Amino acid sequence: MLRAGVDIGGTDIKIGLIDDLDMKFKPKTIIPYTDDGYETVVEKTAEKIQELLKEAGGELSSIGLAVPGSIDIEKGMVIHAHNLNYHSTPIVSEMKKHFPDLPVLIGNDADCAALGEFCCGAFRGYDTAVILTLGTGVGGGIICKGKLFSGGRKNGVELGHMMLKYGGIKCSCGNLGCVESYCTATWIINEGRRVIEAGRDSLIVKRSEGDLEKVDAKLVIDCAKEGDFEAKAIFDIFVDNLSAAITSINACLDPEIMALGGGVSKAGDFLFTPLREKVREKSFFKIDYNIVQAQLGNDAGIVGACMLFRNGE
Amino acid sequence: MLRAGVDIGGTDIKIGLIDDLDMKFKPKTIIPYTDDGYETVVEKTAEKIQELLKEAGGELSSIGLAVPGSIDIEKGMVIHAHNLNYHSTPIVSEMKKHFPDLPVLIGNDADCAALGEFCCGAFRGYDTAVILTLGTGVGGGIICKGKLFSGGRKNGVELGHMMLKYGGIKCSCGNLGCVESYCTATWIINEGRRVIEAGRDSLIVKRSEGDLEKVDAKLVIDCAKEGDFEAKAIFDIFVDNLSAAITSINACLDPEIMALGGGVSKAGDFLFTPLREKVREKSFFKIDYNIVQAQLGNDAGIVGACMLFRNGE
Repeated sequence: MLRAGVDIGGTDIKIGLIDDLDMKFKPKTIIPYTDDGYETVVEKTAEKIQELLKEAGGELSSIGLAVPGSIDIEKGMVIHAHNLNYHSTPIVSEMKKHFPDLPVLIGNDADCAALGEFCCGAFRGYDTAVILTLGTGVGGGIICKGKLFSGGRKNGVELGHMMLKYGGIKCSCGNLGCVESYCTATWIINEGRRVIEAGRDSLIVKRSEGDLEKVDAKLVIDCAKEGDFEAKAIFDIFVDNLSAAITSINACLDPEIMALGGGVSKAGDFLFTPLREKVREKSFFKIDYNIVQAQLGNDAGIVGACMLFRNGE
Repeated sequence: MLRAGVDIGGTDIKIGLIDDLDMKFKPKTIIPYTDDGYETVVEKTAEKIQELLKEAGGELSSIGLAVPGSIDIEKGMVIHAHNLNYHSTPIVSEMKKHFPDLPVLIGNDADCAALGEFCCGAFRGYDTAVILTLGTGVGGGIICKGKLFSGGRKNGVELGHMMLKYGGIKCSCGNLGCVESYCTATWIINEGRRVIEAGRDSLIVKRSEGDLEKVDAKLVIDCAKEGDFEAKAIFDIFVDNLSAAITSINACLDPEIMALGGGVSKAGDFLFTPLREKVREKSFFKIDYNIVQAQLGNDAGIVGACMLFRNGE
């Protein structure tokens, strides 16, 4: 049976088919996101699904939608997706107009990433697991007792808005000191730019040619890897804050495994080795925690959206 | 069928029987905790259970133990209970020596409090719920999808050691800025004593006659209720920090209901009204959260321990 997964982002829409027998990707494609209304987005997506289906051959049995925002799963509504400017948007019923005979399911994109890792990635074989995606913001998804846990009221969870340093840096949500204020590529970039603005002697200045726009998280992390003092100081603080955020999640959920996704997670052992050590130091049980890189990368949203049908309760 | 519940604390041991048909308490009793070894504690407790059983009449079908510490539920061991000085203590097998034919179950005391509220208290009818007990420390228990959730590795959860102000006040666990460093009776008492030490003009000084030992959380809260400026300032900061801790739990679990236990929760509307308002302000969904006082009070541990048999997975 073929399952369609759609990962709707503010830049592009990723669409793919997975055969749920062998869990292999059938064709997938990317189309640009358009902001001329959700009806248009759904229409274009539906057309692409039909094209992929024709190409793959076979019968489609469900469609899953991954959306970056808070979701009312039962009503099939996007409550708020600020990046897409969707508010109380009935995207499921809109998709059902194009596929009246199929179940259409919806999930938060980080929830879908967790489900994707659970079905086909780093979380296979675990009962309780947490994914954090570290990008512009921090997304998070929870697998609890072998199922996606979308919060007690099923609106999705917001791990990036757990408190880390209450009273600290202002977060996009309006609170002071959320995890998202400290554990993102955005934080690394801002700190890198400060090094330039302060006229420090650092590889960051050289590599960016002093151009603030050229500073991204990878540039700062690369400079840290090469031993640059300023970049290393930024990275060490980042790792320390991230270890505190993970410790907080451990105190609440104590998952068997935790995975990090997003660009920053590509730093590899340079990130994971000190991170595991710091989490061990901070954690209540003083044991080695299972913290790994997410496996599905950019496909996590599509895969998880395809697998939403498995999460029936 | 009668169920026995034992709540082992550092001062006393509470023992009770509940009839699981009508969920009513049969006789209960309290004996002092003795620190001459867990075998003695178990022996004295077993004797008391037999006495209560004789008094009540009827057949005993299980025994549950609530212990303030981290637990290996499957092995029936206390991993660490610092207050009792129990470390890797096989308390379940010790109890089975006295009751070889009965199931003996064990749980963290805050977990038991959550289970008690779920079976017979504030959480009846809810699927996902969180209790925080605010005392010397902060204990926490989670009901997730209609069952006690004792963490992904089943060692209990440590909600008091979630981060609140990472880098802040040193916690008993060694970390800086845990929830437990800010949201306890201990914090209120310390701040009250500071008012005396600083020689401020406050009701706190008058009521305590300037004696630091006489300052407890109730005294400070009573002074705040009467409008004392210094006491009110302490209480307002306490409520604000607690609202941030609750917001963090909402971001992670989004429970349908949250209950507060422990002495501080007895402040009633004076606590709950501003607390709910502040949680609403801080929370991602800007809705009214269901935050209530725990119902079972000092019996929470016994009741939850009695009900551990219901939590089979």
